[in-house]
Amino acid sequence: MIVKRFYDTELAQTSYLIGCGRAGAAVVIDANRDTEQYIRAAEAEGVRITHVTETHIHADFVSGSRELAQRTGAALFLSDEGDASWKYEFAGEASAVLMRGGDQFRVGNVVVDVVHTPGHTPEHLSFLITDTAAADEPIAIVTGDFVFVGDVGRPDLLEKAAGVEGTMVAAARTLYASLQEFSRYPDWLQIWPGHGAGSACGKGLSAVPHSTVGYERRFNWAFGVRDEAQFVEMVLEGQPEPPAYFAEMKRINKTGPQVLHGLPHPERLSETGLDALLDTHALVVDTRSAAQFAAGHIPGTVNIPLNKSFSTWAGWLIPFDRDYSLIVSDDCTQCPDKAARDLAMIGLDRLSGYFGSAVVDGWAQSGQRRALATIPQITPQALAERMQRGDVSVIDVRGHAEWKAGHIPGVRNIPVGHLTGRLADIPRNMPVVVHCQSGARSSIAASVLQAHGLDIVNLTGGFEVWQREGLPVSRDE
Amino acid sequence: MIVKRFYDTELAQTSYLIGCGRAGAAVVIDANRDTEQYIRAAEAEGVRITHVTETHIHADFVSGSRELAQRTGAALFLSDEGDASWKYEFAGEASAVLMRGGDQFRVGNVVVDVVHTPGHTPEHLSFLITDTAAADEPIAIVTGDFVFVGDVGRPDLLEKAAGVEGTMVAAARTLYASLQEFSRYPDWLQIWPGHGAGSACGKGLSAVPHSTVGYERRFNWAFGVRDEAQFVEMVLEGQPEPPAYFAEMKRINKTGPQVLHGLPHPERLSETGLDALLDTHALVVDTRSAAQFAAGHIPGTVNIPLNKSFSTWAGWLIPFDRDYSLIVSDDCTQCPDKAARDLAMIGLDRLSGYFGSAVVDGWAQSGQRRALATIPQITPQALAERMQRGDVSVIDVRGHAEWKAGHIPGVRNIPVGHLTGRLADIPRNMPVVVHCQSGARSSIAASVLQAHGLDIVNLTGGFEVWQREGLPVSRDE
Amino acid sequence: MIVKRFYDTELAQTSYLIGCGRAGAAVVIDANRDTEQYIRAAEAEGVRITHVTETHIHADFVSGSRELAQRTGAALFLSDEGDASWKYEFAGEASAVLMRGGDQFRVGNVVVDVVHTPGHTPEHLSFLITDTAAADEPIAIVTGDFVFVGDVGRPDLLEKAAGVEGTMVAAARTLYASLQEFSRYPDWLQIWPGHGAGSACGKGLSAVPHSTVGYERRFNWAFGVRDEAQFVEMVLEGQPEPPAYFAEMKRINKTGPQVLHGLPHPERLSETGLDALLDTHALVVDTRSAAQFAAGHIPGTVNIPLNKSFSTWAGWLIPFDRDYSLIVSDDCTQCPDKAARDLAMIGLDRLSGYFGSAVVDGWAQSGQRRALATIPQITPQALAERMQRGDVSVIDVRGHAEWKAGHIPGVRNIPVGHLTGRLADIPRNMPVVVHCQSGARSSIAASVLQAHGLDIVNLTGGFEVWQREGLPVSRDE
Amino acid sequence: MIVKRFYDTELAQTSYLIGCGRAGAAVVIDANRDTEQYIRAAEAEGVRITHVTETHIHADFVSGSRELAQRTGAALFLSDEGDASWKYEFAGEASAVLMRGGDQFRVGNVVVDVVHTPGHTPEHLSFLITDTAAADEPIAIVTGDFVFVGDVGRPDLLEKAAGVEGTMVAAARTLYASLQEFSRYPDWLQIWPGHGAGSACGKGLSAVPHSTVGYERRFNWAFGVRDEAQFVEMVLEGQPEPPAYFAEMKRINKTGPQVLHGLPHPERLSETGLDALLDTHALVVDTRSAAQFAAGHIPGTVNIPLNKSFSTWAGWLIPFDRDYSLIVSDDCTQCPDKAARDLAMIGLDRLSGYFGSAVVDGWAQSGQRRALATIPQITPQALAERMQRGDVSVIDVRGHAEWKAGHIPGVRNIPVGHLTGRLADIPRNMPVVVHCQSGARSSIAASVLQAHGLDIVNLTGGFEVWQREGLPVSRDE
Repeated sequence: MIVKRFYDTELAQTSYLIGCGRAGAAVVIDANRDTEQYIRAAEAEGVRITHVTETHIHADFVSGSRELAQRTGAALFLSDEGDASWKYEFAGEASAVLMRGGDQFRVGNVVVDVVHTPGHTPEHLSFLITDTAAADEPIAIVTGDFVFVGDVGRPDLLEKAAGVEGTMVAAARTLYASLQEFSRYPDWLQIWPGHGAGSACGKGLSAVPHSTVGYERRFNWAFGVRDEAQFVEMVLEGQPEPPAYFAEMKRINKTGPQVLHGLPHPERLSETGLDALLDTHALVVDTRSAAQFAAGHIPGTVNIPLNKSFSTWAGWLIPFDRDYSLIVSDDCTQCPDKAARDLAMIGLDRLSGYFGSAVVDGWAQSGQRRALATIPQITPQALAERMQRGDVSVIDVRGHAEWKAGHIPGVRNIPVGHLTGRLADIPRNMPVVVHCQSGARSSIAASVLQAHGLDIVNLTGGFEVWQREGLPVSRDE
Repeated sequence: MIVKRFYDTELAQTSYLIGCGRAGAAVVIDANRDTEQYIRAAEAEGVRITHVTETHIHADFVSGSRELAQRTGAALFLSDEGDASWKYEFAGEASAVLMRGGDQFRVGNVVVDVVHTPGHTPEHLSFLITDTAAADEPIAIVTGDFVFVGDVGRPDLLEKAAGVEGTMVAAARTLYASLQEFSRYPDWLQIWPGHGAGSACGKGLSAVPHSTVGYERRFNWAFGVRDEAQFVEMVLEGQPEPPAYFAEMKRINKTGPQVLHGLPHPERLSETGLDALLDTHALVVDTRSAAQFAAGHIPGTVNIPLNKSFSTWAGWLIPFDRDYSLIVSDDCTQCPDKAARDLAMIGLDRLSGYFGSAVVDGWAQSGQRRALATIPQITPQALAERMQRGDVSVIDVRGHAEWKAGHIPGVRNIPVGHLTGRLADIPRNMPVVVHCQSGARSSIAASVLQAHGLDIVNLTGGFEVWQREGLPVSRDE
Repeated sequence: MIVKRFYDTELAQTSYLIGCGRAGAAVVIDANRDTEQYIRAAEAEGVRITHVTETHIHADFVSGSRELAQRTGAALFLSDEGDASWKYEFAGEASAVLMRGGDQFRVGNVVVDVVHTPGHTPEHLSFLITDTAAADEPIAIVTGDFVFVGDVGRPDLLEKAAGVEGTMVAAARTLYASLQEFSRYPDWLQIWPGHGAGSACGKGLSAVPHSTVGYERRFNWAFGVRDEAQFVEMVLEGQPEPPAYFAEMKRINKTGPQVLHGLPHPERLSETGLDALLDTHALVVDTRSAAQFAAGHIPGTVNIPLNKSFSTWAGWLIPFDRDYSLIVSDDCTQCPDKAARDLAMIGLDRLSGYFGSAVVDGWAQSGQRRALATIPQITPQALAERMQRGDVSVIDVRGHAEWKAGHIPGVRNIPVGHLTGRLADIPRNMPVVVHCQSGARSSIAASVLQAHGLDIVNLTGGFEVWQREGLPVSRDE
Repeated sequence: MIVKRFYDTELAQTSYLIGCGRAGAAVVIDANRDTEQYIRAAEAEGVRITHVTETHIHADFVSGSRELAQRTGAALFLSDEGDASWKYEFAGEASAVLMRGGDQFRVGNVVVDVVHTPGHTPEHLSFLITDTAAADEPIAIVTGDFVFVGDVGRPDLLEKAAGVEGTMVAAARTLYASLQEFSRYPDWLQIWPGHGAGSACGKGLSAVPHSTVGYERRFNWAFGVRDEAQFVEMVLEGQPEPPAYFAEMKRINKTGPQVLHGLPHPERLSETGLDALLDTHALVVDTRSAAQFAAGHIPGTVNIPLNKSFSTWAGWLIPFDRDYSLIVSDDCTQCPDKAARDLAMIGLDRLSGYFGSAVVDGWAQSGQRRALATIPQITPQALAERMQRGDVSVIDVRGHAEWKAGHIPGVRNIPVGHLTGRLADIPRNMPVVVHCQSGARSSIAASVLQAHGLDIVNLTGGFEVWQREGLPVSRDE
């Protein structure tokens, strides 16, 4: 039996290719949109992808299952569990085979047993993998967002991200029941989960890539709780705020993602077109580092640095229904493709192209004597003085939980992802100082607010340096 | 004044970016379809492309002028010389500025004087370049396919490639007149031509990239001939046969090439789809080396090795109105993009994607017990024996001029580019041996004929080895 | 706890980086010579490599432990088990910490317990990994070449590869004892082994990357045998012949591998130097495909195609004490570095540089009228006829086990790796036909023998096609 | 005749490969240290490099002639003109052929006539190129640093860079005489010069890559001056200050550059070694952008951003006799090799390796609670106020000519390249504000001074913004 694990660092997401060399066949589980990686891996292993399936309707990335099945001619297997609002709407069009718990399919010598494991979502399935050439019992269970190493899939996404009120307690109870079932598997069964540390699909995921039923039963908090009510309380407590775009992902993955023909290779745009874009208030995202953006950027552009958090902030800040373009550092030849990949992964498919970063200097030197904008910086001490004078407004753009754990007295909390929806709450008659924990998020926030015409200043070093310098901190408010 | 020369090795074609740093503006002359190279170069030089123009309607590659003007917002300048059949049909749609001899335009400090230089084609223009910041006289003339280093543009393409009978003598006379005009320029004026050695747009082009009026007047054969009739005779003699796709290029460039958004990045196709393609007789081009193809290939595929001659043979053998796909060596990560670029350069835009070469081994191992096809080889000695027995047919696939200069007695001459049109002339009741000079073209020919069902054998080493081994050679036939 | 698995496809070898994010520290286990990969991974995870260790003295690749410790300043931990002939001779020079079974070290929150698991080799250790932040029991055991998924490490290498007679039965017994100890671990403990399918360190390794104690106890053949004598017999039976270079690897890894400063980037050699190299009988390895080599190569060069088996055949055929150079396909820009990496992995450090494959055509065209050599091919039918005439000698270059399972009647068996040592056994008075199973190994063999002056012919398609065509096959001889 | 021009953007330097296809031979003129580019080009053109030569002992880059001759086995031709202090000291060791004006050598059909053209340097040669297959007169003259497009080679380098007093007037007169000789060549002869715009080897070089004798005679200022004394005055006036490392280049190129085996591929250093380096005051150059460096850098590191000016500032600031290492942005996979190439080009061969930029964040998070350093910024207005209070010192780090043309009243001028030699002139009892024209050079200066322990502040936007804001400017001082 061939097993290949694909781990996407940005999404903290895992997919699996499991195949039978003798039969030259393989199944891919939980494919993301970089479908070529599975095709290449199958070729390298000398197998064909004959089956494509997924554990559930994903909320944190666009599924590549439909595209992969179409590119390879593989049979597409989708869950038929859950009520009407959890049915794959494109199943018919894609000639998908619908599965329920108890079903089974074979990929050469590999037998896949389908288990219904609701909780994270109602239609969620797990897959027991048996290598019949070597054994008559399963070697592993592919658990998707059901059981992680050290945690379980959160049952509150539907309510919080998709806005369906009153569902999360029921979901938590369902999850509890699924876990009791799960704990009957033998100790030695491997667990191959759908996410690693850093995913917003759970709160305490380990960075260890895989585990066993015996180990989790002993050391995963969720198996240690023997009371349903207590479990419900614990599983719902302290979950991070799901990104707003999760609702959009869910919708896309249910109705059927657009099929790309390979990941996008964005067109390099000529500098000449930039002015026209800015004049029409088109969205231009500058992906250079926060320091470079602060030192000089084209007025009206928004800064989302191309780092590990790029797709998360892009999901928060780029509308799914608008064309947009990028500015990408000319130092980095692979960055345009990398940025486009990250964006395609979450379905931001309306990328028009990108400008090389030479456009920033070129813009200033274009003979029209126009100056680049900067993000002015203020030190904690200077801010403290100005706050006493009362001629600045301060916004803390961290998450609400962080704010509650300690903040500058008297500041307002608007998480960076919510800024565009709350512009009306921000005063325009005085400078606005933004800050976060260490400076990364406030740079993004500053660029967004400045592009909306506010007189913006960034607190250098954020709350971290404020605290380090011994300035006053407030906790209850 | 900024001058950047872009030389495309495959096309043996030159384009120029000429700009004024102070004004931050530049003109691009004779752009090909890799338009991004001009945009990047302009950015690197700190100028914007404000003007795009070309010397004439090209016949050997798809023009990038329209696309470049559209991507950059530059003004497009096109020739208005020549009669109705030589007018750019998309000029209105593209808001082009039409030019005639004697016109002038400025790009910052650079003045461009338009000169009508018909002969190669009726609408052909040349451009005198004056760097007014440094001098009050031109520094160079951009000559397109009018004057090359050591040769002049051939006046017979219209008749031969586009099939307009009876035009080439008149064109040769016009060219003669244009050359007399040209020879009045001062000795020290530089000549920046449109092609280098290897182009099919002339017969004796030098590999020296640029020249001067004085040098060409002394040493270019065309300026040495002082009699029109003699010139006409000489310029029409010994021109290589123009590729059949030149007519298609002419048509595309006159009616308006399709605007791409960057060069294509072909999709990697999954092995699974290959059988269906072959069943429907879709065209699948194997771009591996001739040796690899001969040693084992998927039946029905055609071999055009991805080397310097790739686009030439692709132009001959791939129909412009059919979808096709490629097989590309997995050893070469950049090859899929490179092949797609070469194909886009000549307008073969219907590329569906490519298979990695692993598909070749995979095809044989797919459990259906099918064997890869090979190209059997025969040595000159063995061929000579079989020809005496009379149970083989032999085809010399070299050009007619090569054949005339010496060939195997009794063989038929069908140049490789003409094979598909002359299938009916080839006997199907016996093995067919193909050969060329050294083996490159006959490999392609063998693959084409085998794909059409013929029982094909390749002569190892071609006519070169036949001759070296002292076997009989015939000259007049 | 952070766990990163590094799998080298060519070597079928696994190394692990296991770290503690909170303490910013990590240990690397069983590093190979591509040490930069661990440094980059550590940086990406935000940890420093503070400990470097390995399970045993490897025989199939050059260890990177010493180099990695030196580059990172990490502490080097080496086994102190086994008798005098199994001591790391460079331990003192490298200031290594010596470990025995029962020892323990900590990497932040990660506790590593050292277990002595002899059998494959006497000094072999395994490492129990406990993530104390999550649990008070180990999550996994890193087993090196002790327990694999579906198999155990072979105890016969010392005798077969290093030529120490009479040791393998004792080693098999020791291994049996170690396995009995091992089987006391809990079912749910994960097994993270040192090799995957394709390694010559065992005979039946699975392609599944990891397992559990419970699963292996149930389904691994080695745990099913309850009798020592029977185990010894079974574990020694049917092991593949170890490559001759394994002895050299053992020696290098014991005495201390040379520390490189990054993997080599070989110099591109100028064509001009090639003749001098060939005149002095320097070794020049042509890494193009077998088909390309057969169709034309420079006389005296040897063919080892750059594919998955490259390092294996290089280990067999390139002497460790001689300078050598390569010919690498110009189609593949990354191939020179890739080839050099594969060679460095097994300690073939005397690579002078490489020639681009243009050198092959250039050599023939260099005006000296010399012809490229070819590998003549013969079909099975033609070979059968010639064998009847008795004017050829035939050598089967497959492994002895393959030969025993069926071969062409009357042929001699010399495995390809042994050819250079048995040149005297091969007749020089007639053509020699070489064959293997499908043609890959016989291409290498043909090139080696031709370079030694023999009149060589290759059997197209090998024994596979011979059989398919119904020609006679012999089994006992 | 084959002509290939190699233009190095960073050095603004040109080398030429001129060959004869028929004979398969070529000469390379003025090779730099990226010798592989010539070897590859020769292979692509199907020729061998049989001759290597250069116009003179270069002062602005390390010559690649010796290495190229050694790698290819080509004959090395060197100038034997000039007095004893201008003789190539390694000529004997390298078996070089010595040339004088009037000598001639052939490369197949190409004839190279050697012309002595002193002035820039005493031993300077130019090469007349005749393509005898096409003409009986030369097509071009390769002029090195003698005649440029629009300018002539400066005769003052010896005195200024190498510190040989009293030589530049004599050299200017020699140059005048050489130019008079040169102006006798025919108008139509092409000029192929050794440098383009941006080189420090002249003051008014055009960006046009080549010219003709007739054009230069008409429009190059140097040919317009008909009086020797006036010429001497004009040619010595306004020459930019030569970098200090020019003297070192001269020495290296005369005594014989070290032969590399290909350009260096620096080793990636492990973060762990950084502290030790900094503790011993080893030089660590941070190549990230000025904005990123200013926002946070490891104390003690010096900033030389990896852009077009990288090698220039590296030449000024990195000692030739000390080991050093780099910090390179992890965004840019090709940057380590690119930086190493730039450094090798000017002979800074003691590069130990590079750290990925992750090291900067890692350094701060390493648990030792240490903070990254920043470069504080001050606005022009704020600086003007502080200057009135008298509690800052201001240093203008531009060139002396720029300073003379206008500066902030009362500031001191120390060009950035001279800072380390004049540390004693800078007050340590108050903050020091540095500025240049627009901010690029002052970033470098600030990093250098801060690393030497000064309390440094950077003037945002430099003198450009100071002027734009209407603050006072002084001219004579």
